[in-house]
Formats: sequence, C-alpha cells, structure tokens
Amino acid sequence: MNYKNILEEIKSEVEPLIGSGKLADYIPELANVSPSHFGIELRFIDGVSYAVGDTNIPFSIQSISKVFALTLAIKLVENYVWKRVGVEPSGNAFNSLVQLEHENGIPRNPFINAGALVISDILISNLKQPKNELLEFIRKISNNQKININKKVAASEKENGYRNAALANMMKSFGNIKNDIDEVLDLYFFMCSIEMTCSDLSEAFLLYSNHGVLPNGNEKVISLSQTKRLNALMQTCGFYDEAGEFSFKVGLPGKSGVGGGIVAVLPGKFSIASWSPELNKKGNSVLSMKALELFTTKTKLSVF
Amino acid sequence: MNYKNILEEIKSEVEPLIGSGKLADYIPELANVSPSHFGIELRFIDGVSYAVGDTNIPFSIQSISKVFALTLAIKLVENYVWKRVGVEPSGNAFNSLVQLEHENGIPRNPFINAGALVISDILISNLKQPKNELLEFIRKISNNQKININKKVAASEKENGYRNAALANMMKSFGNIKNDIDEVLDLYFFMCSIEMTCSDLSEAFLLYSNHGVLPNGNEKVISLSQTKRLNALMQTCGFYDEAGEFSFKVGLPGKSGVGGGIVAVLPGKFSIASWSPELNKKGNSVLSMKALELFTTKTKLSVF
Amino acid sequence: MNYKNILEEIKSEVEPLIGSGKLADYIPELANVSPSHFGIELRFIDGVSYAVGDTNIPFSIQSISKVFALTLAIKLVENYVWKRVGVEPSGNAFNSLVQLEHENGIPRNPFINAGALVISDILISNLKQPKNELLEFIRKISNNQKININKKVAASEKENGYRNAALANMMKSFGNIKNDIDEVLDLYFFMCSIEMTCSDLSEAFLLYSNHGVLPNGNEKVISLSQTKRLNALMQTCGFYDEAGEFSFKVGLPGKSGVGGGIVAVLPGKFSIASWSPELNKKGNSVLSMKALELFTTKTKLSVF
Amino acid sequence: MNYKNILEEIKSEVEPLIGSGKLADYIPELANVSPSHFGIELRFIDGVSYAVGDTNIPFSIQSISKVFALTLAIKLVENYVWKRVGVEPSGNAFNSLVQLEHENGIPRNPFINAGALVISDILISNLKQPKNELLEFIRKISNNQKININKKVAASEKENGYRNAALANMMKSFGNIKNDIDEVLDLYFFMCSIEMTCSDLSEAFLLYSNHGVLPNGNEKVISLSQTKRLNALMQTCGFYDEAGEFSFKVGLPGKSGVGGGIVAVLPGKFSIASWSPELNKKGNSVLSMKALELFTTKTKLSVF
Repeated sequence: MNYKNILEEIKSEVEPLIGSGKLADYIPELANVSPSHFGIELRFIDGVSYAVGDTNIPFSIQSISKVFALTLAIKLVENYVWKRVGVEPSGNAFNSLVQLEHENGIPRNPFINAGALVISDILISNLKQPKNELLEFIRKISNNQKININKKVAASEKENGYRNAALANMMKSFGNIKNDIDEVLDLYFFMCSIEMTCSDLSEAFLLYSNHGVLPNGNEKVISLSQTKRLNALMQTCGFYDEAGEFSFKVGLPGKSGVGGGIVAVLPGKFSIASWSPELNKKGNSVLSMKALELFTTKTKLSVF
Repeated sequence: MNYKNILEEIKSEVEPLIGSGKLADYIPELANVSPSHFGIELRFIDGVSYAVGDTNIPFSIQSISKVFALTLAIKLVENYVWKRVGVEPSGNAFNSLVQLEHENGIPRNPFINAGALVISDILISNLKQPKNELLEFIRKISNNQKININKKVAASEKENGYRNAALANMMKSFGNIKNDIDEVLDLYFFMCSIEMTCSDLSEAFLLYSNHGVLPNGNEKVISLSQTKRLNALMQTCGFYDEAGEFSFKVGLPGKSGVGGGIVAVLPGKFSIASWSPELNKKGNSVLSMKALELFTTKTKLSVF
Repeated sequence: MNYKNILEEIKSEVEPLIGSGKLADYIPELANVSPSHFGIELRFIDGVSYAVGDTNIPFSIQSISKVFALTLAIKLVENYVWKRVGVEPSGNAFNSLVQLEHENGIPRNPFINAGALVISDILISNLKQPKNELLEFIRKISNNQKININKKVAASEKENGYRNAALANMMKSFGNIKNDIDEVLDLYFFMCSIEMTCSDLSEAFLLYSNHGVLPNGNEKVISLSQTKRLNALMQTCGFYDEAGEFSFKVGLPGKSGVGGGIVAVLPGKFSIASWSPELNKKGNSVLSMKALELFTTKTKLSVF
Repeated sequence: MNYKNILEEIKSEVEPLIGSGKLADYIPELANVSPSHFGIELRFIDGVSYAVGDTNIPFSIQSISKVFALTLAIKLVENYVWKRVGVEPSGNAFNSLVQLEHENGIPRNPFINAGALVISDILISNLKQPKNELLEFIRKISNNQKININKKVAASEKENGYRNAALANMMKSFGNIKNDIDEVLDLYFFMCSIEMTCSDLSEAFLLYSNHGVLPNGNEKVISLSQTKRLNALMQTCGFYDEAGEFSFKVGLPGKSGVGGGIVAVLPGKFSIASWSPELNKKGNSVLSMKALELFTTKTKLSVF
C-alpha cells in the first residue's frame, strides 16, 4: 500500500470539515489556537513513518498525557494502582462526580479526570521529583529531549480547575487521595499542559504497539502483559463517552485530548497520531476522528 | 502450539474454582443445572477445532442470542438500527432503567436488555415469522439444524420477566417500541431460551472471525465493515458492567450469557466458546472467564 | 373578612394568566377541555362556603384521587401501608423510575405514581370490590352520590399508560406489587378518571381540616393522628417536585392533579378547592396555584 | 396544660433510648461529647418558658446555624437569594453532589450543605465583616451576648471539610460561588461551630413563631411574609432526608443539627428546643426526635 498517498487522500477528505467543530474554550490558550491545523503521522514498529500536514507543530496533549502517567504508575506499582482505580468504562462525561459519589471515591478508570488525579497522587507518593521524572519519561519514549510544558496553559488550567478540585476533594473525603490536594492538582495540570507534535506522539506510542519495548534502543519499558492491559483500557475507555463510537468506527485502541490530538495503535504493527483543534460535542477532534476512521476503512487495518 | 494440551491444562486449572460462583436463580430451570460442568472449544477459520470437556451438552445461551439477533437486524436494516439504539458502554447493570429515563428511551447499546428489546421490536417489524426466521438464521450459521429453544425456560422467563416488561413499557412511553409489548417480550424470551453447545457456538462465531463469511459454504452473510462493528461492540459492551475487566484480562471481543456460556473471537484467526454454569457477582461464568484469560495468556493470542 | 369579595378579587387577578400555561396532552380527553375555566370554593368546617366561578363543573381529579385512596388504605391497614411505601419527598418527577431502582422498589411516598400504584395494590388485597368501594367512599365524604368516573378518560389512560405499566412491572420485580399488574393498573386508572367539582372537593377535604370527622354526620372516618399524618404528607409531597414552592408560597397542605384541580386545607378551619385546566411546566394548574397564593396572602391564613 | 409535667414525662420516656444512637464522629470534638445529655425547653411567645434537663449546657448547633444565616441573607437581599438557591426538598443526603451536577450548580434548597455554602457566599458579598455580623445577629435574636464559636470545632471542621470543599468547587465551576472558595468555607465552618444552649435556641426561634418580631424589644427583624417562607422551608427541608418523617410524626417546622440539637416552632404560639447528642442513621438526634414527637402527641399542638 502507498501509505503516503492514503494519508494525502485523507487530508483532502477531512479538510472540508474545518469549521464544523468548536475549539476548547475553558482556557484562553486553547481557544486561541488557529482552528485550521491538520496533521497525521503513521509510524510502523520497524521505524518507517509517513507524515502529512502539520505534524511538527507542538500542541497541548491534554488527556493523552493520562496514558503516559498511567504507564509510569504501572511500571512502579502495578498491583497497587488497581486497588485505587477501576478498569470499566464510565458511561458518563469525563468529569462526572456522580459515579464517584455512588462508588466510594473509586474512579471507574484511569482515563477519566478523577482516575488521572488518583494516578497523580500515586506518582507523588512514589517519585522524588514527580514532575521532572514524568517529563523525562515522556521525553525518553518520544526520543525527543525538547518536549516541555506550556507554562501559560498550566497556569490557566489551575485558575479554571474548579471541577477537578471538586473531584480531588471528593476523593479525599473518601480517603482515595493521600497527598495534599494542591500538590495533586499541580501535577495533574502540569501533565495536561505538555506540548508534543504528531511526530512525537507517534514515536511515543510505538511502545504500545511494540509490546512494551522501545523500538530504537530495544529497552523493555513495561511487560507484554502490561502493554496489553494499557491497550485494552484505551480501547474501552480512551474516548470519554465516545469510546464505543471510536471502537465502532475506527477499531483501534487509542486516546484523545481536548487539544485536538488523537493517537491510536495497532498492536504488533504501527502507531498513528492525528491533530486538528476543532472538537465535536463529546470533546474529541472532529477531523482526527474522521481521519482515523478513513484510515482503517481504506487500509482495512484494525484489531477487528 | 499444541492447542489440545493447552485446553486440557486450562481445564485442570479452572476446575478447582467450581463451587466459588453461584447459579443464576431467577428462574428454576437455570437454578437446577448441575454446577460442575465445564467445556471449552477452540475453532480456527480453516475449520480445525479442539474440544475439551462438556462441549456437546446444550445449555441456555441467554444473552449470547443478542449477538445473533443484532446480526440479523443489521443484515436487514443497518442504518435504521443505529437510530434506535446506541453503541456506547452503559456503565450500569444490564437491566438498568436509569439511563433509559435520562436518555429518552434510547438504550445505550444493543447488548443491554433494553437494547435487545429494541432489536426484537425491529425484527418483528421486518420479518414475517420472526421466531422461525431468527432460529433458522442461527441454525444456518451454526451448521446445525437441531438447535432449538427450551420451552420450559421460555415459559419461566415470561413468568418472571417483570423487569424486562418494565424496560419495554418505559421505551414504549418514549415511542421507541413500535409493536405490541407482549409480542416484543415474547420474541425476546424466545431468543434467550435457545439452547446450544460449545461446539455450536464456536461454529456460529466463526462468522465474526472470518469477516462475515460462512467458513463452510463461502457465503457472505454480512459485510466486512458490519463484522468489524459487531466485534467492536462485543469488545466494549459484551460483558455487562464487566466489559472493561474482560477486555483487560482476555483482550478479545466476546459475549457472555447467564447460562454460563462465553464466546469470543480473534478476528482473522479463531473463535472460542466456553461453558460452566456458576456465575460471579456480575453475572459472568466464573470458570469461563478464567479459562479465556488463561488461554490468551498461555497462547499470547489477543487483539492487543 | 368578606370572603366572597376576596374570592372575586382573586378571580379577576388570576384570569389574565389564562393562555400562559398548557393543557395536559398525554390523553385527548384532557387536551380537549376548554382552557378558560376558573373556579374557587372556600368551605369552613362549620359548613359555610363561598364559591366563585366554575365551581359546579365536574373535571378530572386525576392525582387528587391519590389522597382518597390513601385515606381508605390507612383506614383499613395503616401500619402495613408504611411497610410498602415511604413518607419522604421524592425530589424527582412524579413518574420517575430512578429512585425506585435505587431503593428496591419501595416508592418514596404515596403521592408519586409508583406510591399510588402500591396503594391500589393494597386496596385490591383488602377490598372485595375495590372500584365500587373506593367510589362509594368518595361519594360519602363528598356528600354527593352522583360522583362517577369518565369512562373515556379511563380508557385513554389505559391506552397511554406505558410509564405506569413500567413502574408497576418494576415494583413487581422487587416483590412490592402482590396482585396482577393489569388489575392494579385498572384500579389506578379508574381512580384517576373520577370527575368532581370544586364544590365536591371542598366538601370532601373538610375531612382533613376537621380532624377526620365528617362535618355533617359527625362520623369519625379516620383518627386525629391519621388526619395529621395525611396533612403532613400533603404538605411535603402533594405537588410533585413543586411541593417546596407551594409550601413556600401558599403554606397549606394540599394536593394537585393534572386535570387542573388543587385542594388545600387549614387544619381546624377550612378547605379550599380551585380549578383551571392550564398547567405550568411541573404539571400544576397555573391559575389555581396563583389563586391559592393570593388567598393566603390576602387573608393571612396559613399554617405558618 | 401542665407543660412542666409533660416535659418531665417526656424526659423519662426518652432517656431509655440513650445508647441506641451514635455520636457524630467526623470530627473528634463531636465524638467526645458525653452521650447521655438530654434537655428540652418550651417557650411561648408571651415569654413564659418551661425547661427540663440540660437546657443550659452549650452544644454545637451545626446545621441549625443555616436558619440564622438564611434569615440574615433574606433580610439583606431576599429576591437575589432565590436566584442562587432553590426551595424544593432534595430527596438526597445533605451533602450530595449528584443533584448539583444535574442542575447546573444551583442547590435544591438553602438547608443542604451546598445551599448553605451559597448563603455564605452571599453574606460575604453583602457584609463588611461577615463573621462578626452574623454572630452579632444571632446574639441579638437570642438575647445572649455570650454566644460564641468553639474554635477547636471550627478548626476540625476545616481539616475534615473535603466534601464541603468539593461542593464549593463544583458550584464555583458553574459560576454559583462568587467569592474565594477558602473564604466561603471559612464562614461556613465558623457558623457550624457556634455553640448555644436549648434556652438560647428557644429564645432565638421565637422570632419564627412570632411573625418576625423580637418578643422582648418589639423590633421587626423580618416581614411576616419572610417568616412564613422560612417556616415553610423548615417544614419541607429542615431534616435532611428525614423531612417527611419529621413532618409526619411531629408536624412542626423545625431544623436539626448533627450536634444533636433540634428546634421547632408552632407559628403564633411557641418555640421548642431539644438536645441530645446521639444520632440516628439520617443524622438527627434520636432522643430529640422522639421528644418532639411525644410533645405534639401529648399536647395535640401541631400545624396539622
């Protein structure tokens, strides 16, 4: 297959959708991004990659960072993680407090905000310099030492983070946050404000298609079994309350963020990252969703 | 790999779990099944199969029938189906009325009871003899003309079906049931009371691993794209509120029933059916869940 | 005070509100009532009464009948009633299934539909001819042998009663309906379709302001303590999810129905019935709500 | 009636219940109170009062303070108050986040914690020294300049106030908290930690039975209409999710606190305050609930 051509085709097919979504507007930094960006990068585990569009412009990875934080937490204390957070789809919006209240402060899964706050809390308990160590981990698996946070985004998130503060306080009332709430929120907002490119993300996610092994250095970061679990979680819980829709239309495990990025993997084969800032009502990038759907339809490459 | 040996190993490893679950007890016919059965059958798309234990004893397939009914409905009127029922995990128990009330009578997905009642309703509107035609469809894809319902089970289901009647009435109040409620319930209880063996189920599910084509006759029953969608739905919604757990531990699309059966597929490779009547608290067979987990762990065959 | 004048004043003050509400439209019989009716009748326990407007036109009492059914049930088996139904405000719409599901089929109070269905069930278990005996009871306390049901309304209710059938089936699944569901629904729809005038209702409700004693005949129908409990229930649960609003603005125990009627009492003093068919969004009569608010404001007669 | 004798009788009838409840234990200061206290004081609007038991021992008034804060807020900006908070019973526990999430951050009523936090926020926006001015208001209507807070309780509340912090952050995310969250919580915990005796409370609540006028000084604190509304709110929402039970058994508007106090009023007649620290499962004082039930049963004095 001529993957370059396929990606070009996809680009021309999704670009007419620009204008049909809405930028995230809960912080000014996301609302001010130019809405017309689109990039897509496909990377095979043998290292060959195909890039079309804006694949070298860094954007706010937002919730995609939850995958990296969870990977690091699992690497450190896997069994403990599953005592603090579940593995089931939530069936509710990503920032819902309802289930938390009915289920004694145990979040449904690590990809809803409440779950990611618990993962932050676990990282703080298990790392000396959680921010630095998480950032170093991401730089390493992305093979890019220049990855960093956007400080304005981090500050804005904190200023507008009342819903996340509500979640953290709620879980603390049930004893499921161990550290100081401000410290937990601070690490959470730090990871949400990391900026990466499609190229970085496709590189980093090779880990999940390559059974936990870094393609370049042959270093085993997590076990095969841990990788399978992460992929299974992305499949069932990676897209807020649109996980079924994504699984249904795209058929790959993946994760989205309100910065407009989506990354997905075909285990044993490739990773693919797409970015375009306009979101649908569920908070997922309109163009990236469509681009990935077209990709698996055109190539017939999916887990199903 | 020596699959026969692997299945034998699994059998000896799960049998100590007999006694740790509980039989379904909402109707006497299920409560009276001998709890010590266990069978598992693996069937590759080339026709080769491996069977261990009670793979030729028919049991009540219960919710597994929802996959067959949905397949037939999709074959008939695919686009219409997705106007009447969603594709997202429910995050709640299989017979919950809460989401139905909040979401205007549209069930979250076709594998919760409410969703299967809508599928029954669609089949009634689109088939002349819905019971016969559904049964013939199942016999055909299972390659077994002897498959039938258990009349006592069907009668018992009806006598105890108040929760399902509540769901159907609720949806009718929102206009999402078009036919007479008793007729809809009657077809629903009919399909739940179908009896099949592990051998039948592994045969029937080859359809979903073989891209919609019947292995024996080369007949295309549903399209590749429809098959992918059914597999995606089984992955995210096939196990009540334990879909995440199953995806996480087993990593295959599949469907369970309170009769103790579980069937799963690896697209492009095989189907696997397991049966043992004792259930865990979520309504899934204790031994079958464990058997499939052991299978994908031992063989490293999973979608992730 | 010149009560006649006060009622006349109220009439002229509320009539401009005609057109601001909406007729109940779930059955044709209610949707076809002329929307411009308004009547109000005040009746003191000494027998003196004041009537203004359409106080002799019978209308569908709908949920007001729940008070009569509960009174009869309490007269028969008071302690048993409180094992089957609660006494707390529901905080939800009158026909919600959510709380029922969370609370094992025990309705929050006897004035939401689920609660009234349980009361129907109790009457069926305790009366030989439940319909006749309930109707005779209402005729007796209203001192009017001509009171009857509207058969078209009863038939229409039954045809459109899917939500109530859902409630009844749900409770049956929890064991909180003992008789046949159709029989329970039949009695429920029977009582909802009773027609009374403002004059009848003010007569009947003297019972609740007169400590359980019939004013004319001096017959003690229920005890003082039972009367207090019924009044307390009307105060906290008599107006669907607008009980607080009514208590707040009017300050009297009372009960409304979607036929547009509202009856209220000041214990030890009087009863007051108002009717006007247009409803607000919560299902309570726009003009009757305002009329009663004006009455307690003008006369300073309220329990608070 | 010999009220002194009746109160003595009640005391001897409720004392055997000591040991059947449980002290509030979410902060050490409440858990360490001696459980065997009981006091009851009845005060008529003409100034005559009857006291039995521990009526001069100060205890933590906790949620009873919500009535005082609301009274002050209504005095300042009544119409604005009802734009920020509802008047309906919640049907849920006092500290539930669920309804808040479904209803855009508008609390159901001012007596659940979320509602009282909004009232705190309003007081901060409208008073120069909210803590002092609230305390002075309470001292004035209680006619006791010595009333003060317990600083240890206030500090403990703050240390354990994660659930309230969750509520405040949640409402802030919807824009329904205008001031700094810490300041709002600080005032809220301040008011909860005020200590008063049964004697103080019966004095202060005469305001609500005396149509808003201070009995001693003839000063009109709030209007008759405002008083009626406060009484109506206490009737429907004053007892967490036991408002119906209290209305049903006692039949008076009132308010309880987890310090074990309950105050109630008969408008136009009297106020009555009772205290005993052991709570039932709903958070209301076991002995005080029973004592007030016995009082209205023995004296036949209730609004119904």
